[in-house]
Amino acid sequence: MKARRLFLLLFLPVLLNAQEQEPAAAKVVEQWDYLELTLEGPETGNPYLEVDLSAVFTNGHREIEAQGFYDGEGIYKIRFMPDEPGQWRYKTWSNVWPLTAQEGDFTVTPAGEGNHGPVRVYQQYHFAYADGTVYYPFGTTTYNWLHRPRETQKATIETLRGSPFNKLRMLVFPEGKGSRSAPERFPFEGDPPADWDFSRFNPEYFRQIEARLLELREIGVEADLILFHKYGSEWGFDTMPAEVDDRYLRYIVARLSAFRNVWWSMANEYDFVKTKQESDWDRYFQIVRAGDPYNHLRSIHNGFLIYDHNKPWVTHASIQNGAAVEESGRAQMYLDVWRKPVVYDEVKYEGDNERRWGNLSGEEMTHRVWCGIVAGTYVGHGECYNQPDKVVWLSTGGRLHGTSPARIAFLKEILESGPGPINQVDKWQDTQLAGVPGEFYLKYFGHDAPLEWTFQLPRAGVRTGQVYTVDIIDTWDMTVTPVEGTFTLERKDRYHFVDEAGRVVDLPGKPNMALRITRVGGQAGRVTEEDPNL
Amino acid sequence: MKARRLFLLLFLPVLLNAQEQEPAAAKVVEQWDYLELTLEGPETGNPYLEVDLSAVFTNGHREIEAQGFYDGEGIYKIRFMPDEPGQWRYKTWSNVWPLTAQEGDFTVTPAGEGNHGPVRVYQQYHFAYADGTVYYPFGTTTYNWLHRPRETQKATIETLRGSPFNKLRMLVFPEGKGSRSAPERFPFEGDPPADWDFSRFNPEYFRQIEARLLELREIGVEADLILFHKYGSEWGFDTMPAEVDDRYLRYIVARLSAFRNVWWSMANEYDFVKTKQESDWDRYFQIVRAGDPYNHLRSIHNGFLIYDHNKPWVTHASIQNGAAVEESGRAQMYLDVWRKPVVYDEVKYEGDNERRWGNLSGEEMTHRVWCGIVAGTYVGHGECYNQPDKVVWLSTGGRLHGTSPARIAFLKEILESGPGPINQVDKWQDTQLAGVPGEFYLKYFGHDAPLEWTFQLPRAGVRTGQVYTVDIIDTWDMTVTPVEGTFTLERKDRYHFVDEAGRVVDLPGKPNMALRITRVGGQAGRVTEEDPNL
Repeated sequence: MKARRLFLLLFLPVLLNAQEQEPAAAKVVEQWDYLELTLEGPETGNPYLEVDLSAVFTNGHREIEAQGFYDGEGIYKIRFMPDEPGQWRYKTWSNVWPLTAQEGDFTVTPAGEGNHGPVRVYQQYHFAYADGTVYYPFGTTTYNWLHRPRETQKATIETLRGSPFNKLRMLVFPEGKGSRSAPERFPFEGDPPADWDFSRFNPEYFRQIEARLLELREIGVEADLILFHKYGSEWGFDTMPAEVDDRYLRYIVARLSAFRNVWWSMANEYDFVKTKQESDWDRYFQIVRAGDPYNHLRSIHNGFLIYDHNKPWVTHASIQNGAAVEESGRAQMYLDVWRKPVVYDEVKYEGDNERRWGNLSGEEMTHRVWCGIVAGTYVGHGECYNQPDKVVWLSTGGRLHGTSPARIAFLKEILESGPGPINQVDKWQDTQLAGVPGEFYLKYFGHDAPLEWTFQLPRAGVRTGQVYTVDIIDTWDMTVTPVEGTFTLERKDRYHFVDEAGRVVDLPGKPNMALRITRVGGQAGRVTEEDPNL
Repeated sequence: MKARRLFLLLFLPVLLNAQEQEPAAAKVVEQWDYLELTLEGPETGNPYLEVDLSAVFTNGHREIEAQGFYDGEGIYKIRFMPDEPGQWRYKTWSNVWPLTAQEGDFTVTPAGEGNHGPVRVYQQYHFAYADGTVYYPFGTTTYNWLHRPRETQKATIETLRGSPFNKLRMLVFPEGKGSRSAPERFPFEGDPPADWDFSRFNPEYFRQIEARLLELREIGVEADLILFHKYGSEWGFDTMPAEVDDRYLRYIVARLSAFRNVWWSMANEYDFVKTKQESDWDRYFQIVRAGDPYNHLRSIHNGFLIYDHNKPWVTHASIQNGAAVEESGRAQMYLDVWRKPVVYDEVKYEGDNERRWGNLSGEEMTHRVWCGIVAGTYVGHGECYNQPDKVVWLSTGGRLHGTSPARIAFLKEILESGPGPINQVDKWQDTQLAGVPGEFYLKYFGHDAPLEWTFQLPRAGVRTGQVYTVDIIDTWDMTVTPVEGTFTLERKDRYHFVDEAGRVVDLPGKPNMALRITRVGGQAGRVTEEDPNL
């Protein structure tokens, strides 16, 4: 192996927004942004197979090891996402001498505006950014957008910027070509459709993905990266040898872990990938977990057979279910099973597709997202209206045409008006009610169309004398109508409190109405752990 | 330790029904009945702690090891349930010489009428006896009946004999006394309420349980034995040291495994037993599994927090959920999670209790059982009407007063009229329909009250030209009304088949109606494993 002159570059990732750029020489990086070490090393042999590279980063009291990767043409990189401001140092390690024992230091500044860090599980069933800001996932899916023409990608980013969506599901490997143009790039060296040198990655392919991830990061969208799928069988990426699968995972995790908006989704419809066993998926999870020093969220999305989300490497359940969020009582059932957040990433899509997974009305899509929210879960949007140009959001991104996104934005605002994540308060009695007990509630009537609702709250967290306001919410017309006056609690029976004057809320007899119930007076109540049925 | 004269008795369990008795000298036992070896041994020291005893039973090609137990007064026993007819031999092993190396042989005759063997998991989500006869669990609960006066026990057996119920949940340890008389016996030597010598069992306590199990066996009722609970805290059996828990489990499993109608339920509301950790429950399962050579069904029943039923020692999910079977779409959701049978053993009870877990109407109890059945799951009944004599079925057994048991019997007949266990056929589209695809279906409309139903079946298992009959079922009035004529299939669209003449079934516009749809002509169809949404 030829020894080469070594130089070391330390610079920040190029952000599209010029205002966020820092001088390359500054040796300064923002918390939860990433530092990128660039080293020159051997390009003979096969660096993808032969060169190990990592670095240990420390701020004195903590050490974090990050894996490096070969970026082609003799360039090696190590990326690091610091999670604390202060002075940090690093030292590289490699089995190749020009890459090893390189040392340096840098300064980490506090996170700037709009930078809340990576998303974590929060309050058992929910999510928050690392800085503590609650994150309510309102996701959508554009499976193949990373592999479509640049113009479509730009349109996708612009659409997302103006949408409520803050999470995007996408495939790392391209979909099958179908009737569209083939992707411009492929993840391995070789020739399409399937003549690949699986021992050599195509760095350009991954650089393109990284650029898109930074664009998403810039607009506050989490990137739910789907690592395997079965939709591109012509390319053969679902039938690679196990050692290639594993190397691919180590490579992409080394490249992308430092992006704070990355989530790892092992697969879409994992059980439809007939070439793999359940033990393969277990192994993938463990490889991803081992290679990612930041512990980004990890999930696996099912077809018809649900993975065992109790396994310790699963951070949240990513569910496809075509019926679960038709009704909030169904939607909440999985929470008790896994004691983890449940995200219904696929619940059928809004659209006019002839297949029944793709022809929900906007009304029904909106209804399903509400059902999920008042179940204490989250629901992913998708859209597949047939378009003359075949630019269908679900697959390619581009533009949205449906009627649900505006309503989802409205729901998101309602949810954000509350004090934090909501859970079902009395799950075996009223599956249409969720809230923060004694503080804030959403009641969603779904397909029911009542003419009135007697003010009543379950006992958890409430007490006599508490005072509440009620807003009537039309989830489709997107109106919020305050009910005049307030509601003052007194105990009704063992389980419930009602307004002391027996007040009733008049409702318009329409479906898809909701209530927002907010405490505005009285003392906070207590939430006990007792058997709620006693 | 004093050496004693040894004698060995070989006899059959005393059955209450004299017709089933065999001469004690016959050395003949029926398949799935049990053989009982009786040995005399030491009664000094503490045999419960000091004596190990087991026997290996073999019919030449198989060896099965069964654990023995001390039955008091110098008597030791080993019970064995043979699962194949033929000639069998045994040989004992013990750490005490008079009990070890005893040998003998016996004949196993084929199972007699009404003896189908123990119940196993069947077709993944269902149950069958060991002889292949399908077993549909229609369970009920009388938690404390083993610990009530003999007269009440007799009434319980008579009630069960005339009921649809073929499974009974019951506590091994007594409930707290409450306002009732204390139990006559306790499982340990000592004095109530809590002055126990945990190192010495009271064999009489267990013999009494065994007599009840044989009575249940005689009338075809499976005994779902609850090994721990929290309702008798005054006796202290929920706060025993771990070594006592473990010894108790080994003892009861050694005594009762040979009863073919035993099921092991680790706990009722396990998560409400605050003295134990999840790891304790895992350990209990493993002790029970290790001690039971027949692999009887094993489950654990939750309060509010569901155990991880994916763990390999769980044979089926035993669920408490107060809302899951209000609606068949909810009820089916757990099947995909655990890929095991789901038995909703507690779904609130029929009754007039002031607590909301105990005041379902008979109509609602019946509705819930139907919802569970068309979800491909099973639902347990319970009843707690307040009675002047405080003999409440749920707790003490005795007599049933409710209106649901007759309807449950009716449903059981309907289900037994089909070809076998039913599953949801198109679970993300029609959660009210279950069946054996292309053969037999039950459609349950629940709270809907349609005036008509257009004959339509999902594509799985069906084909053009198949001919069906339809019966209209009133689940409450218990009527079956055949619809005149037949329905001949033709394809409607990608997903459905309908009657070629577009026939519609007229319905009475009442809730809780069902349909039974039976193929009577045409060729069998194919059920493929394809993604059902494509």
